[in-house]
Amino acid sequence: MPIPILKLHNYLLISIQTEIDDQTAIQFQEDLLDKIHKTGATGVVIDLTSVDIIDSFIAKVLGDVVSMSDLMGAKVVLTGIQPAVAMTLIELGIHLQNIPTALDLEQGLIKLHQELGV
Amino acid sequence: MPIPILKLHNYLLISIQTEIDDQTAIQFQEDLLDKIHKTGATGVVIDLTSVDIIDSFIAKVLGDVVSMSDLMGAKVVLTGIQPAVAMTLIELGIHLQNIPTALDLEQGLIKLHQELGV
Repeated sequence: MPIPILKLHNYLLISIQTEIDDQTAIQFQEDLLDKIHKTGATGVVIDLTSVDIIDSFIAKVLGDVVSMSDLMGAKVVLTGIQPAVAMTLIELGIHLQNIPTALDLEQGLIKLHQELGV
Repeated sequence: MPIPILKLHNYLLISIQTEIDDQTAIQFQEDLLDKIHKTGATGVVIDLTSVDIIDSFIAKVLGDVVSMSDLMGAKVVLTGIQPAVAMTLIELGIHLQNIPTALDLEQGLIKLHQELGV
């Protein structure tokens, strides 16, 4: 099952709540870019609260999707990164620099407002 | 994969974007009630924009979950019901009476605000 992408005003909201396999990750990347294109969304919040563990492939896809969304004009905020996920990302050398993060979905939306200056 | 449930302030947001099987529907029912209990959410928006077709079992689960959420104190708004889905629901005798509906997620949240008087 693809990961649902919710549109709320100018933003897209995504909550990843299960471990995802490589195929789902790739499909998510395509779906998100497609949805940004179709909706003209200016901001994206990807919530990882329920993700306990992340592998190098998924981490790379996540890093890529943030850069790709940025190129398309949509700012991405990552929320709810758990300790183990943060450790994995840094250990893998994926620093996700310049990517705003926040505690949860609410804080993520506030961050987006700030980043976009609206 | 279970259907993700997003928490935004006092509300839970769900977007069903693929055909779901019976098992997923039952699990969604359990997950939603559990999440209402845990978060104390007062409102729920279930968006069906991407659901093209619905069968009698899924329709019944959907009707049930609305009544159950109501019992637990969370008002449900259904959004994005497509023509074919509306036809199926009525033909199956599932009238979803007294259930507020709206066009999309944004309108659904506005409706919840109205219903809850906040």
